[in-house]
Amino acid sequence: MRLLPALRRLTIAALPAFLALLGGCHATPPASDPLPSWNDGAAKSSIVAFVEQTTRVGSPDFVPPEERVATFDQDGTLWVSHPMYAQLVFCLDRVPAVVAARPELRERPAFRTVLSGDRAAVARLSMAELEEILVATLTGMTTDAFAAEASAWLATARDPRWNRPFTDLTYEPMQEVLRYLRANGYKTFIVTGGGQDFVRTYSESVYGVPPEQVVGTAGATAFGYDANGTPTLTKEPKLLLNDDKAGKPEGIHLMIGRRPRAAFGNSDGDREMLEYTTAGDGPRLAMLVLHDDAIREYAYGPATGLPDTKVGTFSQNLYDEAARRGWIVISMRRDWKRVFSFTTDGSAAQ
Amino acid sequence: MRLLPALRRLTIAALPAFLALLGGCHATPPASDPLPSWNDGAAKSSIVAFVEQTTRVGSPDFVPPEERVATFDQDGTLWVSHPMYAQLVFCLDRVPAVVAARPELRERPAFRTVLSGDRAAVARLSMAELEEILVATLTGMTTDAFAAEASAWLATARDPRWNRPFTDLTYEPMQEVLRYLRANGYKTFIVTGGGQDFVRTYSESVYGVPPEQVVGTAGATAFGYDANGTPTLTKEPKLLLNDDKAGKPEGIHLMIGRRPRAAFGNSDGDREMLEYTTAGDGPRLAMLVLHDDAIREYAYGPATGLPDTKVGTFSQNLYDEAARRGWIVISMRRDWKRVFSFTTDGSAAQ
Repeated sequence: MRLLPALRRLTIAALPAFLALLGGCHATPPASDPLPSWNDGAAKSSIVAFVEQTTRVGSPDFVPPEERVATFDQDGTLWVSHPMYAQLVFCLDRVPAVVAARPELRERPAFRTVLSGDRAAVARLSMAELEEILVATLTGMTTDAFAAEASAWLATARDPRWNRPFTDLTYEPMQEVLRYLRANGYKTFIVTGGGQDFVRTYSESVYGVPPEQVVGTAGATAFGYDANGTPTLTKEPKLLLNDDKAGKPEGIHLMIGRRPRAAFGNSDGDREMLEYTTAGDGPRLAMLVLHDDAIREYAYGPATGLPDTKVGTFSQNLYDEAARRGWIVISMRRDWKRVFSFTTDGSAAQ
Repeated sequence: MRLLPALRRLTIAALPAFLALLGGCHATPPASDPLPSWNDGAAKSSIVAFVEQTTRVGSPDFVPPEERVATFDQDGTLWVSHPMYAQLVFCLDRVPAVVAARPELRERPAFRTVLSGDRAAVARLSMAELEEILVATLTGMTTDAFAAEASAWLATARDPRWNRPFTDLTYEPMQEVLRYLRANGYKTFIVTGGGQDFVRTYSESVYGVPPEQVVGTAGATAFGYDANGTPTLTKEPKLLLNDDKAGKPEGIHLMIGRRPRAAFGNSDGDREMLEYTTAGDGPRLAMLVLHDDAIREYAYGPATGLPDTKVGTFSQNLYDEAARRGWIVISMRRDWKRVFSFTTDGSAAQ
């Protein structure tokens, strides 16, 4: 009786879930599946096996709760990083406001290029020029002012392909892994080459990872007092931790002080983190997301003959090392039923 | 009937607790007192009021669980730091082994002095000489080797006054505050001028604070591989964070990324941490342990006319700032019923 009005409000998108509630849809996995966005296969089963092996009381490989640490790269592992890292878009978008406040920057070639709006020219900026942009947009302000700027940008900026906030572009299968590990007593950490202060502004709401569990590229701050005598921390152009490649295990030691039991990455920048993780004894889980799904997301990286990229390289070398060491490569195309939470298509990829 | 054998096994130390169970001991506080080692007074009541105010559902000052961060200095706040920081004793004790491994150090004046065993001469070492000792004993080895050295030392070294492991010399009233805050959803962090790697070896077993919640003076590490190709992290003589004075709020931002709601210290090195903590809005708790108990522990610091010290100075300036800002000074002598967990005397101090 009461079903009809409800059915009328149903969108096509909600239909499979609704049918599953009625018990008529066998394609929907059972409620007990902790990873419903994953297709059955080696990737999914290795995650489940690792969790059962390390958390089942009585297991010979039982890991005490306090030692359950899992680390996740962000860009390309938890959310989209192509064609350009979200944080770099933020920095470029901040240039007009920074130049308005500091007009002397207007004549610097790097800033002139960004202000011209010529995307091809922006893509050709040298590393030194990019660094100039990063220093001007990421340092010099108080930590509170920076957090407010980043939050305001995230609330309005849109990824051009999906026309959605960048924070919508997280991979639903990886969100499930985060939640599954936490439900089994793992502390989940983000270990990112991105700016620690930037990622911390949204990590809790987007990933359920609190700021104190975000390790990222980090600069010094300087404690001082403003004109009212209120204590402030000002972001300095001095790098403390370059949280990429060897910097990832170094950052893990600095900020966490324990070797992870599980680590997830997607590029050559994550190699040392996975090596460090798997060098510990007992079962260790090491996984790499391979971007091989040009339809639902992107396909890139020399591994498996895909086009090359500078944003999140997955080299043949890394691919070979993964095979040699038993690290699991996650194929976005084959292993993921859906990529985003807003993807309504639950079918396997083509 | 079954009481007699149990009574026979009771030690004198356990007697008050046992009598309290029988309901016959009015000197023992009720089971609901979260701070039984504290005398009634402004210090105790301000802790209880702060916790109730920030955690009672419906309180206008309610703080969501994820924002409940409390930071504690260690030396002189959580454990004894006189006459010499435990970590400095460790470094001096390590000198013979380091010199045996690197004989070229034997002729350096600083090492010759330490090897001579002349305590007065050791106390006169210059800062540059001390730094030479610290670099040689705290860097150059892998993080795993260092942790093993520190743990082995802690297991055997004894504080000369109490003839007990240093890790026994934690203040029971502060342990109660740690547990009380955690029981009310606060995440407790140690924020120490001591070495982060050193403190992390025992923070979990001694304070219930996991390594990832220890912020301390931290050096860089270098990722590499040993002769077997196993990944290693080697401790480098390069300072990343001097976690003292202004370095404390800077370290809190770097490692935690949230402003604490409560902060505890005992010296001028904690001033900026308390300023940063109390500059946030809503109720904030700032407390300073005053070492004014020469009988049960030590009495020092120019504040209140006590003898001066270089180890944990509590200056008149800090005392004045505390009064001006409403920070609570904890008198060890008057506010603490007992100082250590092994102290069986529950009477107020003389």
